[in-house]
Amino acid sequence: MESALHCCVVLTSTAEPVPATRLAELHGVSATYLAKQLQALSRADLVHSVQGKSGGYVLTRSPAKITVLDVVEAVDGSEPTYVCTEIRQRGPLAAPPEACTAPCAIARTMFAADRAWRAALAEVSIADLRRMVGDDYDMDVMSEVGKWLRS
Amino acid sequence: MESALHCCVVLTSTAEPVPATRLAELHGVSATYLAKQLQALSRADLVHSVQGKSGGYVLTRSPAKITVLDVVEAVDGSEPTYVCTEIRQRGPLAAPPEACTAPCAIARTMFAADRAWRAALAEVSIADLRRMVGDDYDMDVMSEVGKWLRS
Ligand code: FES
Ligand code: FES
Repeated sequence: MESALHCCVVLTSTAEPVPATRLAELHGVSATYLAKQLQALSRADLVHSVQGKSGGYVLTRSPAKITVLDVVEAVDGSEPTYVCTEIRQRGPLAAPPEACTAPCAIARTMFAADRAWRAALAEVSIADLRRMVGDDYDMDVMSEVGKWLRS
Repeated sequence: MESALHCCVVLTSTAEPVPATRLAELHGVSATYLAKQLQALSRADLVHSVQGKSGGYVLTRSPAKITVLDVVEAVDGSEPTYVCTEIRQRGPLAAPPEACTAPCAIARTMFAADRAWRAALAEVSIADLRRMVGDDYDMDVMSEVGKWLRS
């Protein structure tokens, strides 16, 4: 997750396609590992792989239109992180299936918290992150990154 | 998590200590597995184990004073679910450690969402869940459970 998010921010620093190996080198992570993250981003249509000699990855759209939630769900899916196994339907006092068409109060509470988490992630875009990263440092970090990626 | 939360709600249905094996039977789960969950709840001082012949588990305080977050953190800990490995300090453009005293923009965003998730869980008490479970069914489910636990 950390490298997928960092990659998306880094990809805002250049209009040119960036090879996966270059992104792996920049982040000091294994190319195989990063390839999987990039494939997940690609499946979710957040990045696009340009073929050919100067090929590589580019963002498919403006970073203002990609939220942190988009990236998180591309990598980890959009299923709630809380798993309900319908424990209420087990044991001697099992609730009958027909009484269990809606999630139980506990599951509803956990799902609501999951939605609050996703809502917070949906409020921040990759463009916001880029701006925040820029504000964090004295020097123009994103330009430096862009220069390095193109070099 | 599911069984720990269900146990806490179930324990509101009787003032008498409930043996772990009885809770396992009620929920149709393995006694060994449930014992671990109950030990976690006990370490967090949410339940208390009464020794002796009619011993078992009781809630340590009013269910209105135990939040869903208390239970979730008892079982899974209070560390943020997002793990930042300081990836920004790796690779050829690594940020120097002295520039990394605060979490990066990405980590801050992920931690903020984690706080939103915990805040949602802190808003609901075990007493609320008990009420919600009661409202979900026509019959007085919690009395039935209490009766069964004492039988
Ligand atoms: S039955 Fe799954 S949380 Fe209640
Ligand atoms: S360095 Fe860990 S999220 Fe940015």
